[in-house]
Amino acid sequence: MFSGLSAFPLTPTDENGIDEHAFVGLIARLAAADVASIGALGSTGGYAYLSRKQRAWAAREAVAAAGTTPVIVGIGALRTRQVLDHAADAQEAGAAAVLLAPMSYQPLTDDEVFGLYRTVTAESTIPLVVYDNPGTTHVTFSDELHGRIAALPNIGSIKIPGVAAAAALARIAALRAVIPAHVTIGVSGDWLAAGGLLGGADAWYSVLGGLFPEAALAITRATQAIDSTAAREASNRLEPLWALFQRYGSLRVMSAAAETLGLVHSPNLPLPLLGLDPAARSELEATLLRLGLGA
Amino acid sequence: MFSGLSAFPLTPTDENGIDEHAFVGLIARLAAADVASIGALGSTGGYAYLSRKQRAWAAREAVAAAGTTPVIVGIGALRTRQVLDHAADAQEAGAAAVLLAPMSYQPLTDDEVFGLYRTVTAESTIPLVVYDNPGTTHVTFSDELHGRIAALPNIGSIKIPGVAAAAALARIAALRAVIPAHVTIGVSGDWLAAGGLLGGADAWYSVLGGLFPEAALAITRATQAIDSTAAREASNRLEPLWALFQRYGSLRVMSAAAETLGLVHSPNLPLPLLGLDPAARSELEATLLRLGLGA
Repeated sequence: MFSGLSAFPLTPTDENGIDEHAFVGLIARLAAADVASIGALGSTGGYAYLSRKQRAWAAREAVAAAGTTPVIVGIGALRTRQVLDHAADAQEAGAAAVLLAPMSYQPLTDDEVFGLYRTVTAESTIPLVVYDNPGTTHVTFSDELHGRIAALPNIGSIKIPGVAAAAALARIAALRAVIPAHVTIGVSGDWLAAGGLLGGADAWYSVLGGLFPEAALAITRATQAIDSTAAREASNRLEPLWALFQRYGSLRVMSAAAETLGLVHSPNLPLPLLGLDPAARSELEATLLRLGLGA
Repeated sequence: MFSGLSAFPLTPTDENGIDEHAFVGLIARLAAADVASIGALGSTGGYAYLSRKQRAWAAREAVAAAGTTPVIVGIGALRTRQVLDHAADAQEAGAAAVLLAPMSYQPLTDDEVFGLYRTVTAESTIPLVVYDNPGTTHVTFSDELHGRIAALPNIGSIKIPGVAAAAALARIAALRAVIPAHVTIGVSGDWLAAGGLLGGADAWYSVLGGLFPEAALAITRATQAIDSTAAREASNRLEPLWALFQRYGSLRVMSAAAETLGLVHSPNLPLPLLGLDPAARSELEATLLRLGLGA
């Protein structure tokens, strides 16, 4: 479950709640595309902005709509107590694994981060993916901290931030050296994913894959065939899209792309988050058409 | 209300909830000390970790225990919808003003931050303090953004991060140049407060003042008397405490200091936050004794 393409879909949400029909449709689409796993309620899935009730609902519906595809459910929250509640709800929903980012408001110490993972893994019976994403959590994981956490029971994988192609081999080897062999390493930062996979990562935790699974699978499969030329070409041709991810944030870009495909209504992000402005939206639409990703 | 010492108390909280008796005691103590205002549910008051119900309760009790001292209530949350709910609760509780930090998970654009303040001030009838705290919100306010927000109706003050003494005069003048005259500027970062007040800030939004109001008032009054020598001396003698704030975070230090004073139980921070470890606690206790701030 913790290798290959893990696709992270949106949870279309406006001020009235989750667009339930659209959410189920996005999940079913990924299951049909044969991704290795589905990451529901990741950062792209807006977990941080949803209530416990909404998250429990989304976990149940994702598992139901995913069929035999394993579903990894995000359980992060600012308080340990809330994380435990979300973990219990995810397990009850039939999630195959949980994904935990150490959300923070007050900056956390390493001991506080470790304590969170220790408490959660002690109460959980399904595997946990450590979600290292300093861009949203503002927690910086040292390799020493990764090693301590990965040695806890029930740790299945580590989702690391994007790493430049030239540095990927060394980065992944360094991390691999401090974690148990059964814990896999997955990359994120879609524009760097091909390099990460070619550098030895087991999985790609992918925003692109949540809406364009075929394009992400093409890259993933080329890396699995160790066809580095094909992998790099498949990634490089998406450069105009990666540029938009970096300029506007991958969440806002995927939100607008899903609208373009007619899969979600507008708006579909919870305020204060705003969709792309009209100029950026035109730019995205032209880019999708050019890449053959249009409606 | 938006000048002088604004004292920010703890909201003692453990896994069972708020220690209601201790919270009311902390507020009453500040009112008795004659601070200019009380900032309930600030970052030190742990607003980000409390439920809507807990926050509404704390707002009501703070107003009741503060007597004639105005209470500023923190209303920040990740979603605009939640912020509006907290603002309504604070107004109903009788708060004199609200304090709003743009909490973030996904990095926010300037337009998103502005949109949040525009929506909240449009629905609010009491003044709002803009809370600029990149250490917790990870939002960086440009002066241009400060100017746009300060021009909205009902903006009363801006709480800015600590600014080094040598830079304070220029920093405050630059900000003053882009905001309306009725909007005051308050500093935080306690160890830099004397310099900020001497540099022209109107208010000190103070963590120290939330537990040691006399020590904070001594600094504040010296700056108001334009006795820069006395102000700097009063601040400099607290240097050992400022060092602990910077090393462990002011929240953890004030939490342990309140325990030392017998004002709160232990633990009083919500997990995953941990109190000081025994060595740091001993260091703090010795420091408080030496400074005459002990029990």
